[in-house]
Amino acid sequence: MGLPKPSDWEWVQEPAPEPGDGQFLVEVDYISLDPAMRGWMNETRSYVPPVGIGEVMRAGGIGRVTESRNPDFAAGELVSGMFGVQRYALSDGVGVRPIDIALAPAPVHLGVLGMTGLTAYFGLLDIGRPEAGQTVVVSGAAGAVGNVAGQIARIKGCRTIGIAGSAEKCSWLTEELGFDAAIDYKAGDVRADLRRQAPDGVDIYFDNVGGEILDEVLRRLARHARVVICGAISQYNAEQPPRGPANYMQLLVERASMTGFLVFDFASRYPEAIAQLARWLNDGQLHSREDVVRTGLEQFPDVFLRLFRGDNVGKLILELDRS
Amino acid sequence: MGLPKPSDWEWVQEPAPEPGDGQFLVEVDYISLDPAMRGWMNETRSYVPPVGIGEVMRAGGIGRVTESRNPDFAAGELVSGMFGVQRYALSDGVGVRPIDIALAPAPVHLGVLGMTGLTAYFGLLDIGRPEAGQTVVVSGAAGAVGNVAGQIARIKGCRTIGIAGSAEKCSWLTEELGFDAAIDYKAGDVRADLRRQAPDGVDIYFDNVGGEILDEVLRRLARHARVVICGAISQYNAEQPPRGPANYMQLLVERASMTGFLVFDFASRYPEAIAQLARWLNDGQLHSREDVVRTGLEQFPDVFLRLFRGDNVGKLILELDRS
Repeated sequence: MGLPKPSDWEWVQEPAPEPGDGQFLVEVDYISLDPAMRGWMNETRSYVPPVGIGEVMRAGGIGRVTESRNPDFAAGELVSGMFGVQRYALSDGVGVRPIDIALAPAPVHLGVLGMTGLTAYFGLLDIGRPEAGQTVVVSGAAGAVGNVAGQIARIKGCRTIGIAGSAEKCSWLTEELGFDAAIDYKAGDVRADLRRQAPDGVDIYFDNVGGEILDEVLRRLARHARVVICGAISQYNAEQPPRGPANYMQLLVERASMTGFLVFDFASRYPEAIAQLARWLNDGQLHSREDVVRTGLEQFPDVFLRLFRGDNVGKLILELDRS
Repeated sequence: MGLPKPSDWEWVQEPAPEPGDGQFLVEVDYISLDPAMRGWMNETRSYVPPVGIGEVMRAGGIGRVTESRNPDFAAGELVSGMFGVQRYALSDGVGVRPIDIALAPAPVHLGVLGMTGLTAYFGLLDIGRPEAGQTVVVSGAAGAVGNVAGQIARIKGCRTIGIAGSAEKCSWLTEELGFDAAIDYKAGDVRADLRRQAPDGVDIYFDNVGGEILDEVLRRLARHARVVICGAISQYNAEQPPRGPANYMQLLVERASMTGFLVFDFASRYPEAIAQLARWLNDGQLHSREDVVRTGLEQFPDVFLRLFRGDNVGKLILELDRS
């Protein structure tokens, strides 16, 4: 419960392990920092088991294979996988894929071309099912997943409205990413802004935040709207039991649906999605922004907590300092 | 806000109106009493406009055409429609359909063969999409819509669990209607009972009540579960802002959906559904129970409020006393 404290993690040094048969060792360069990691720290039944006390903190990352006893992965190869918050990770190859840096620099493979972009892609397209001319609202829109979801909505010809927490984030969305409008929820009146920006109602709401903003958007759903539940960052550190969407009966009034999803269920379609995201990236329709913080592994707690302070924009990545 | 008081309605006597061109007059015999009517009294934006102060209270009913200047409806015909809480109703025929009492007695046409049965039918089958062997939980299961939804689930080969508010209601569900199990939410521990009765999780939850019970069922959703939002009777008379489902993030954990619906959207398929419901009724697979209260129109408030006291079972109908 509550915001994590740096003392919730312990930084330890151990000798790098030796790969056994079928295993390989990865030297991690980049660690993906995601709001979902906060949920993995809670001891409740969820879609993955909680990270146990004393276990390595779970995280995605990119690194280079340094030693391999697995025929599918050669020393020197750059790979992406769930390597955890550590410098050296032992892997058996499950869930690990090679990274093509000819396509984009390594950090982009944790962002637009990684789980982040894939989450936005499948959540918006498969769960949200946007059609040209529809109105799409994205919360946490300056965050890693949110900004990509909004850009895909814009590519699909939707009126795209982002909700974010500062004027600076909002101008990034409208001026650089091509969102039609952005609402600074800290500045004003989300209800009035939504009424003005979505006069015909909201066809798709891609929700990363939950809480009051979810309730405000529910009020403005259009007939047959789809609410895509991607996250609820406003509730992850709640000291109180989480707040449910009091206006959920709007689902009945508007014959609408609210659907949760996890990107892992789409694993068989990752290659198709990555190819599409890479095409949009290369032809300039999709912009990628990584917020790469280069520092030592022991600074992980401080960098991770930026996610909950609202002071990062785009994909937050910890780059491990080699010094 | 709050439970309605008898003084919220006024009983007035007026001369019966004369039908104009294209109109007909109906003498109402049976008035359908539904929890949704409570919602129509609130001055909030919903799927129908609120009933205004001084207007006739909206309600479905069955009556006989006494005078007609509409070529589609002849004097003497028995018809069903939204005639309101009144003895004589003027109609232009919109939404009015003839009733075939060879199929079933008139009150059944407000229950299983009326909006009640149609709501259960489309909500369960089209929104819930049950498959044989799946686990279906219905709340408000001894209510008009709930008991039919559960029976259809049982007909479709599902493990069917009803949640209701007394031991008597629960035994009616299991002993007479063929539910596999029933949970008396007033008696015990809904969480433990659900764990025992739905060990593999809940594939479909047909919700008529909202509130705490919705939260308890969300905890036990199975992978890819469908939550069908039909009503939220526990919240209709709330003095406080309604309570949202705090456990809605289980939709993400289980890749599940929560969908609202209104029976009116299925109007083009009413004939097909009524024919199917009538077949099940006639071959004994579906049981119909009407709770018909015969009294004067001025007793409407008192009879209507039984819905919220939990002391009716099956379809509550006011039969207008002719004396």
